[in-house]
Amino acid sequence: MPSPPPAWVQALKPSGPQGSELLAKEREQSNVAVNALAELLHTKKTLERQKELVQVLQSEKVFDKSQSQSLGRVDRLQSALRKGKRLQQLSVERKWSLEEYHAAAGLLGEPTPYALHASMFLVTLREQSNPEQRKLFLERAEKYEIIGCYAQTELGHGSNVRGLETTATWNPEDKTFTLHSPALTASKWWIGSLGRTANHAVVMAQLYIGNKNFGPHPFVVQIRDLETHQPLENVYVGDIGPKFGYNTMDNGFLLFNNLKIPHISMLSRFSRIDPETNKYVRPAIPTLVYGTMTWVRANIVLDAGSVLARGVTIATRYCAVRRQFQDRDADSNAGETQVLNYKMVQVRLLPLLASMYALHFTGRGMMKLYQENQSRMNGATQPGQDSRSPGPEALRAGADLLADLHATSCGLKALASTTAGEGLEVCRRACGGHGYSSYSGIGPWYSDYLPTLTWEGDNYMLTQQVARYLLKAARAVLAGKGTSNDTSQILQSYLARRDKGASFDILEVDSELVAAFAWRTAHLTFEALKHRDVEKRSWNSLLVDFWRLSTAHSQYLVVKNFYEAVSSPELASFVDVATADVLRKLFRLYALYTLEREAADFYASGAVTVRQITLTRTKAVLALLDDIRPHAVSLVDAWQIPDWVLDSSLGRSDGKVYEDLFRRASQENPVNDLVFDPYPWNEGPLKKPASKL
Amino acid sequence: MPSPPPAWVQALKPSGPQGSELLAKEREQSNVAVNALAELLHTKKTLERQKELVQVLQSEKVFDKSQSQSLGRVDRLQSALRKGKRLQQLSVERKWSLEEYHAAAGLLGEPTPYALHASMFLVTLREQSNPEQRKLFLERAEKYEIIGCYAQTELGHGSNVRGLETTATWNPEDKTFTLHSPALTASKWWIGSLGRTANHAVVMAQLYIGNKNFGPHPFVVQIRDLETHQPLENVYVGDIGPKFGYNTMDNGFLLFNNLKIPHISMLSRFSRIDPETNKYVRPAIPTLVYGTMTWVRANIVLDAGSVLARGVTIATRYCAVRRQFQDRDADSNAGETQVLNYKMVQVRLLPLLASMYALHFTGRGMMKLYQENQSRMNGATQPGQDSRSPGPEALRAGADLLADLHATSCGLKALASTTAGEGLEVCRRACGGHGYSSYSGIGPWYSDYLPTLTWEGDNYMLTQQVARYLLKAARAVLAGKGTSNDTSQILQSYLARRDKGASFDILEVDSELVAAFAWRTAHLTFEALKHRDVEKRSWNSLLVDFWRLSTAHSQYLVVKNFYEAVSSPELASFVDVATADVLRKLFRLYALYTLEREAADFYASGAVTVRQITLTRTKAVLALLDDIRPHAVSLVDAWQIPDWVLDSSLGRSDGKVYEDLFRRASQENPVNDLVFDPYPWNEGPLKKPASKL
Repeated sequence: MPSPPPAWVQALKPSGPQGSELLAKEREQSNVAVNALAELLHTKKTLERQKELVQVLQSEKVFDKSQSQSLGRVDRLQSALRKGKRLQQLSVERKWSLEEYHAAAGLLGEPTPYALHASMFLVTLREQSNPEQRKLFLERAEKYEIIGCYAQTELGHGSNVRGLETTATWNPEDKTFTLHSPALTASKWWIGSLGRTANHAVVMAQLYIGNKNFGPHPFVVQIRDLETHQPLENVYVGDIGPKFGYNTMDNGFLLFNNLKIPHISMLSRFSRIDPETNKYVRPAIPTLVYGTMTWVRANIVLDAGSVLARGVTIATRYCAVRRQFQDRDADSNAGETQVLNYKMVQVRLLPLLASMYALHFTGRGMMKLYQENQSRMNGATQPGQDSRSPGPEALRAGADLLADLHATSCGLKALASTTAGEGLEVCRRACGGHGYSSYSGIGPWYSDYLPTLTWEGDNYMLTQQVARYLLKAARAVLAGKGTSNDTSQILQSYLARRDKGASFDILEVDSELVAAFAWRTAHLTFEALKHRDVEKRSWNSLLVDFWRLSTAHSQYLVVKNFYEAVSSPELASFVDVATADVLRKLFRLYALYTLEREAADFYASGAVTVRQITLTRTKAVLALLDDIRPHAVSLVDAWQIPDWVLDSSLGRSDGKVYEDLFRRASQENPVNDLVFDPYPWNEGPLKKPASKL
Repeated sequence: MPSPPPAWVQALKPSGPQGSELLAKEREQSNVAVNALAELLHTKKTLERQKELVQVLQSEKVFDKSQSQSLGRVDRLQSALRKGKRLQQLSVERKWSLEEYHAAAGLLGEPTPYALHASMFLVTLREQSNPEQRKLFLERAEKYEIIGCYAQTELGHGSNVRGLETTATWNPEDKTFTLHSPALTASKWWIGSLGRTANHAVVMAQLYIGNKNFGPHPFVVQIRDLETHQPLENVYVGDIGPKFGYNTMDNGFLLFNNLKIPHISMLSRFSRIDPETNKYVRPAIPTLVYGTMTWVRANIVLDAGSVLARGVTIATRYCAVRRQFQDRDADSNAGETQVLNYKMVQVRLLPLLASMYALHFTGRGMMKLYQENQSRMNGATQPGQDSRSPGPEALRAGADLLADLHATSCGLKALASTTAGEGLEVCRRACGGHGYSSYSGIGPWYSDYLPTLTWEGDNYMLTQQVARYLLKAARAVLAGKGTSNDTSQILQSYLARRDKGASFDILEVDSELVAAFAWRTAHLTFEALKHRDVEKRSWNSLLVDFWRLSTAHSQYLVVKNFYEAVSSPELASFVDVATADVLRKLFRLYALYTLEREAADFYASGAVTVRQITLTRTKAVLALLDDIRPHAVSLVDAWQIPDWVLDSSLGRSDGKVYEDLFRRASQENPVNDLVFDPYPWNEGPLKKPASKL
């Protein structure tokens, strides 16, 4: 690394006022109860755990982040594997719970090549193994004696799982399966931890018995030698190459050439092949995939708040430190204005600040609903519950709610991850030129997050599921078969009131604002239903309408969840009136800003008047920006993202933005060890200065 | 690099229909005259030159791109310097014109460390040197005996040039300047080619004579030794570190500690210091910055079309090759549908296809106007013109037009670069999972393009200039002092017709569509004027309105330029009626899709009715998508971006998408040379397989 700068450089300070002074002022001027709010958001326990874990990680050199963005893929991958190994060692040494292990992995700031072993491989083995398989695969995997991955997606098939081409054919004669890749497009692709790390894989393949296809099923397959780590015969496996992000992960490809695997390879907790009769045995109990996927998506929604919070924290703090130009209307001695004072900056950042709170509370609301419902449906199976089984009516209501949650989770996953992904890029640009530096901390985070918009259901594809569900619910309501769930209710109230019209008082009454969003969803649902059922339009011609409908419905859910969170009695037990008031304003900003952006929908549905929309834009939103501005830094402080995790010169909690940018560029940047021969007629570049060039 | 795959893998093909067959069908089904259209877009001469240059570049191993995305920054920078050197050698060997050199550099696909030397350093020396300086600096720079850069931006100041902190103080006693960085924030920052390459810099510094500040002026300063390439004393210089993109460029920092430089260092074509009197001498002729910046921005608009075309070409071809799911309404033997047939994909890609044409024609329209006006104003100074000087009236009209062009170029630069940057990300996501692979070719291109949204005027900042100009024009029109330029005219027609209302026939008459966009601009201008002049609202509170106004005005200009291009007689001389008809539909798609997205504005201004907007969305846009779909591949083919330039598996013109993804991953990916020790209890990773792990 480069030698330290000369004394005259070390003596230089940024011109005043200093970033630390500006942030101190920001914190003084706000009466938001930062710590109490932090505990409301994350719980005291989680915050304390985070502090401890960061201390552990920060003290180990292997977790150093300073070179990550300068390294090539080979070096990054090796460094990430070292991090993954050390994390696993720490986990054993310190007897971390699974939750603690995952919390620590999350704090690292980048995925490691163990990530898919530690998540999907273990989870699938846990959920889908029979007792014998648990012993053979799961127990060894938990001890990292075998390392695995989850191989579903193929080169030719991502979204359409039923179209997978890999086959597993049952051989009755020797009680084995033949695993085969009949085409190049059958190659497994994008499989995390597969490229260089895993020696086992759960492979999703079309199960064939005779000529009959029983659809995709999971098989545990050894793919590399446990001693030499070389691929087994008739297995071709490798890494799929550099990516837009996620370059610390060895996403891989995998092909099979008529590989024989034993009967035990097929994960058989649910369905299996009876080796005696050579018959397929259907699942005894229905798979719980429905619920698991809802849970995964609820987590993406909750995480989206925190993902976005990183960008907003960085941009808000930096825009409070950065000063540029004088306000045109200010007197000429005022000095340069903090960038955060400009309305054009506020209108980009503060709605995102509101969004991160909105998504967080929405994710939490979904989880709560999901858990309550699960407990109710499982009856006695949950600890601490009385032992009566739920009656058939309770089960029906539970299943109805779960179906509702499942559908809404699809739309919310799409909205939340799109908001977070695109929001991060807005934050990056709000930082001006320095946002483009890796030291901003936003770019790398954004690049690594983007796959979330595509995986667990592509964000555009998912909206069809939401529309399908809403159309079904609307048909039920029209047939007088509405249920008590929320979707059914908003459709019913719309029908009851449609002829009278709406005229919600969105500017004065918060609950009316929620009602306006519900109205818009219902309006778009019945419009779409008319197109499909009455006008008999093709599904394809309605995809754009369905996407709009799903977005509208998901925005309604976020507004509703945020409203419930800021109106809940729980709030008052955590924070004082002043803080609660600011949260309420964040809710209003989220709702009104969204309404204004989607004005055409709201107007066309008759939920609001053009006059109300004009007032929203020209008065209400601007006033809320003014009201929230003084609390902006406190509101991101409350998220309590440690500096080590942010890994950002611009977002440092102490405001020493310029010092840190300069220190990293001059001291941690391996490029500055190079000496170029700059003349085109010489064959450069030189590693060391020549005496004569 | 990894060894070739075994025979059984080499025998595999993608499952059919093959990509090459699908693209062949696409090309068959369209009657667009691809080659004629290509010549209309680029001219035959440019296309031929491109072909020749690509042949030259492709044949030299130094320009190989296959490892770029896998390398770390140190290696990428060294490889880029080698490319820059070889390009300069070729330029001399083959006697390239300056235009050919820049065309070749553009085809490389990444900037080299010479980029700022070859552009801003040489341009500044050319434009601002006096004869003695031309000899001393320019002539040597052109021969690459000295290598330079252009050092304006500082750590603490980007947009606000007047706030720069670096000082150059005149020393009357020894006729020198003292160059000094008084604070850390004065460090030059982001300076391309400075970090490791340049030995000279044009430094913008506040000129002081005595205690009087004469504002920022350019100084040519030697910063590194010409033989050892080590920084000179009292100069601290280096690379600023890794970035979101542009990592083949050594953007640098630079600090001075009271460095003395001679009188000749100050570039003195316009203003200078008289060393006898120690007095500042004002420019004899006004600087032409106004025109140059307009020219630079017109180029950004023109380039934006081609930048976007790369993403659209890749996504369109891939979505024609990729098949996923069956159409829900199709019969069950239909097989999977080409992704490009889905309306949700079309509505994302085809408006961008229209945009790339729209931006291209707009950029060309601006350039033409600019050149015509320059010729007229320069009179005899242009070759091939008659020798009469223009009269005072012609000069006044020319200045008026130039002012209009300058302001509109600001707004268009913002709109065009935002459209291209964000459009590339839309293209990437439309490619589904594989869009995330670097082999898609979109990600690296997007990352390198993003700075364009910030430099040459931040896209949000620029909108203030547009608004300021429009307000001024509106005040003039209200005072009866309108001119004959277009802006003045659309404001006047709005005033003349405002009371009667508009009701443009946007769905039937193309010129009315243009008029509706003009109407909206005029409406928003007078609204903003009322807020500022009548309601006396603060400038800051209006920034969001100004941004909307600038966007609206720029969209009008794009629609107008596109309309003029598809209505021009020139079109008929290049392409047949069928092709012209498709271009006309692209124009309508661009205009109607934009109108629908900005519906609230159009409705509020009274330009259209709600009914028209509904029809636009539910009928007109969908019908245009249907009409354009069969020509999509031909319309991107017409852009004629060579495969070597696209550097994309997904966008290959032969449709061999999966073969190429697989080849690159398995054969060009250095990660596959690694053998990991996957067990956390060992200290890995191993470079070679151990006999026992």
